[in-house]
Amino acid sequence: MAVRSAEITREKLLNAAHELFVERADHAATVSEICTRADVNVAMVKYCFGNKDGLLDALLEQVLSGLSAEIERLSALDLSPDDKLRRHVAEIVRNYVRYPYVNRLMNGRLMNADPGAVDRISRSFAIPARDWYAQLLADGHRRQGWTELDPTLFFFSVVGLCEFFFAGRPLLERSFEGKLDTDMVDRFADHVTTLVLDGVHGPR
Amino acid sequence: MAVRSAEITREKLLNAAHELFVERADHAATVSEICTRADVNVAMVKYCFGNKDGLLDALLEQVLSGLSAEIERLSALDLSPDDKLRRHVAEIVRNYVRYPYVNRLMNGRLMNADPGAVDRISRSFAIPARDWYAQLLADGHRRQGWTELDPTLFFFSVVGLCEFFFAGRPLLERSFEGKLDTDMVDRFADHVTTLVLDGVHGPR
Repeated sequence: MAVRSAEITREKLLNAAHELFVERADHAATVSEICTRADVNVAMVKYCFGNKDGLLDALLEQVLSGLSAEIERLSALDLSPDDKLRRHVAEIVRNYVRYPYVNRLMNGRLMNADPGAVDRISRSFAIPARDWYAQLLADGHRRQGWTELDPTLFFFSVVGLCEFFFAGRPLLERSFEGKLDTDMVDRFADHVTTLVLDGVHGPR
Repeated sequence: MAVRSAEITREKLLNAAHELFVERADHAATVSEICTRADVNVAMVKYCFGNKDGLLDALLEQVLSGLSAEIERLSALDLSPDDKLRRHVAEIVRNYVRYPYVNRLMNGRLMNADPGAVDRISRSFAIPARDWYAQLLADGHRRQGWTELDPTLFFFSVVGLCEFFFAGRPLLERSFEGKLDTDMVDRFADHVTTLVLDGVHGPR
């Protein structure tokens, strides 16, 4: 198969999986459903990704690398640590709206405990994000008097802070009678930003 | 079957599922594995819980009701809002250590979008917790000058804050070369407590 044509098929399969995961409350789809949506022969999954896990890993890597690229862009801007953190938190929240399945996908691959999958998640997201937090926390401490925080623990808490709101959407909509619309997402982003910003500034 | 005997079988099955979920990295077990561990006939799952989902719901309800009972005990103590929140956050972290599978279980049942399962999670945990946060945030605002925060959004962020650290354990141990031991859990509890406490106290 020509390289160019294989590339196009790969893209089609990733887009089809993305679409199906976004549409479905359980963020799940079979290989056959993904291939039907992509209008691609089932055998191409093996050809392009080895197997379904390979396809899931590639999709996850695409989404996480996008997050890391945003961090790099943000890092290059001439902004105060406060402003960088504020934009970053809002960006994480927006990413959960764009890729509502990323959690389930990442936690599933992490739980699977396949060392290769964990390493890919580290390389494409966890290590770059943690290293950027380390630099940002040091900058914030020096320039804006932020409290001293462990960047690894900060990584887990900031990512988690935004996560349960989306995983817990049925609670929001059914139990708390909220609606996950643009206004609610904006309110949540403001809320998280306020908590984290005041958190890093330390005790009054 | 005598009521007393059915009660004992029910307990055995819940304990066996708890044990297996704690032992396994993927927090999963088949009905047959649970019954073998409990030394109970497979037919008893249907008798006691209807089906596997019923068993999972009962286990989740047991864990979440325990969390709510702790909130009630804490609420009755004569402590400042700061101290209550500090103890509560540490308690959530400890609960993830005790029940490392609770996330996967809760998110799985939420994603399943079975209204009955969502309502049980609401009743046994989400609503009592959110209502307590509403009272605590109001108290903290009045007595200790806390910033005004939405209790529903606060519920999602506090629970999530503690969640990803445990779901992301393979990242901690493999990518960041940390070890999830008692010392690390204590450091994480301190870190989260600091962030949230400084967060609710608002801008300096």
